[in-house]
Amino acid sequence: MDLGVDLDVLIAGAREGRPRAVARLISLVENGSPLLREITARLCADRPNRARIIGLTGSPGVGKSTSTGMLVRAFRRRGLRVGVLAVDPSSPFTGGALLGDRVRMQDHATDPEVFIRSMASRGHLGGLSWATPQALRVLEAAGCEVVLVETVGVGQAEVEIASLADSTIVLLAPGMGDGVQAAKAGILEIADVFVVNKADRDGAQAAIRELRNMVALVERDWRPPIVPTVAHRGEGGDEVVEALDKHLAYLEASGELERRRHTRAREEIEAIALTALRSRFAGLHGDRRLDTLAARVVEAGLDPYSAADELLAALG
Amino acid sequence: MDLGVDLDVLIAGAREGRPRAVARLISLVENGSPLLREITARLCADRPNRARIIGLTGSPGVGKSTSTGMLVRAFRRRGLRVGVLAVDPSSPFTGGALLGDRVRMQDHATDPEVFIRSMASRGHLGGLSWATPQALRVLEAAGCEVVLVETVGVGQAEVEIASLADSTIVLLAPGMGDGVQAAKAGILEIADVFVVNKADRDGAQAAIRELRNMVALVERDWRPPIVPTVAHRGEGGDEVVEALDKHLAYLEASGELERRRHTRAREEIEAIALTALRSRFAGLHGDRRLDTLAARVVEAGLDPYSAADELLAALG
Repeated sequence: MDLGVDLDVLIAGAREGRPRAVARLISLVENGSPLLREITARLCADRPNRARIIGLTGSPGVGKSTSTGMLVRAFRRRGLRVGVLAVDPSSPFTGGALLGDRVRMQDHATDPEVFIRSMASRGHLGGLSWATPQALRVLEAAGCEVVLVETVGVGQAEVEIASLADSTIVLLAPGMGDGVQAAKAGILEIADVFVVNKADRDGAQAAIRELRNMVALVERDWRPPIVPTVAHRGEGGDEVVEALDKHLAYLEASGELERRRHTRAREEIEAIALTALRSRFAGLHGDRRLDTLAARVVEAGLDPYSAADELLAALG
Repeated sequence: MDLGVDLDVLIAGAREGRPRAVARLISLVENGSPLLREITARLCADRPNRARIIGLTGSPGVGKSTSTGMLVRAFRRRGLRVGVLAVDPSSPFTGGALLGDRVRMQDHATDPEVFIRSMASRGHLGGLSWATPQALRVLEAAGCEVVLVETVGVGQAEVEIASLADSTIVLLAPGMGDGVQAAKAGILEIADVFVVNKADRDGAQAAIRELRNMVALVERDWRPPIVPTVAHRGEGGDEVVEALDKHLAYLEASGELERRRHTRAREEIEAIALTALRSRFAGLHGDRRLDTLAARVVEAGLDPYSAADELLAALG
């Protein structure tokens, strides 16, 4: 397929870690280029290293971007090449990112070993962009040994990040009230590491205590540690990385890392297959079957289950 | 199918508006009873009235439950039978509702013309329970002329409620800060009526002004009105209902009501068909094909698109 893009050159450039080639490839996968499939196939076929994928989520205002910056520096001190995918909240209708590029990240802008990308959240799967796994593959091909995926922790995005990452950091801050309370049941199940940011503020000790009581009730094999940080002063970054290392060691020893990768591959295959089926349903080539069935449900008392049966039978 | 449930009796009871029959039917559909399909088919086949479906969404703390209560009273003053589905945020992993039953609704507990139900949000579609459309059908069968669907406005749930409802109310309150700001782009596209609650508080006029400026930029045919309320004192309930009536008249005159119903039916059929396909993928009857494909993606460099092709080919 020739779309004015020389994939050989682009992929070779990305593998050499050239930022413009990396950015271009991510743009292609993010925009659903017709080359998406070919790009993915090539990146999968030759995969010399595997990146650690670390998810970072939390409510608005807890300091996600600052914490991501702190972790980037901590991993860089260890000499690792780092990628960042900041998945922005956005209108599910327009698809446009609200936040644009991250000003706070600019202190890494000249570091050739750090790749930072903001991605729009398309919303139709509830949070992370469907292109996130492909963008991760591009960063991996560029030699990133660690990729941080940062997303706002509302509703479904939290769950998606946990299913995408090897280790998930849930970021909290004292005095966030409601949000944290409401999310409790969910965050306990997705957090591999808790970070309590703004630990120099009033209420931090109380928040840590409360969290410790909650964590004590966790019945999983891995009990998430709680790490206090003051991200804007860079305090606690190394301790977070140490907690992540321990979690990685647990994942490897328990076989859980393999299980998570397997589950991820299953989910990705399934999602691609379902997307393909949806576009068949949508009535390509002038087939109005779904519209006809919908009209019968609205007007003629057909029930949606029988309608779905007819649709599936028509798929053949 | 005999599961110790006499559907004839139950459905007849619901159609007579007996609360216990209504509650039992909703429990059956919510719990994914094997009778779900049969219940839905019967309710679809004989549908003497159509309920107006009104969605109500907003951030935590804006006064959703209190506002729902106010609207129930306003519709009751017009002599209408009212249903309420309160879809609670909950852990997507456990499926349990966090909030349980709504204490504030208890002033309607003895009104035989009001049906109130809290539903757990299963989370896998990002917010509203998949059972919501079926529960709406039960309430409609029970003669509800208006059904209010209340859900917390975070992320995907907002979008889902807008696609489910004839009219969507977005509830705001002065001084909610971050959440409202972040949601701006989204709420402008889903709101049919804006309600600014706690309008007696500082900052209410500023919030209304800001909202008015935003709404002035809306390019849809319907420009959402902004109604101030003080829900805990019951102020503004009738004005909200008047705004909803105007919106309904617009929906009918423009043909938009028919379009929304058609789109809803399409989406429901598609969702049911995709769920059926997913369970085929999941490898019923010992078929481990998806697992085998996932293992090849993880270990052998197969790309997920080719894996999805193989999966679809295997569906036959």
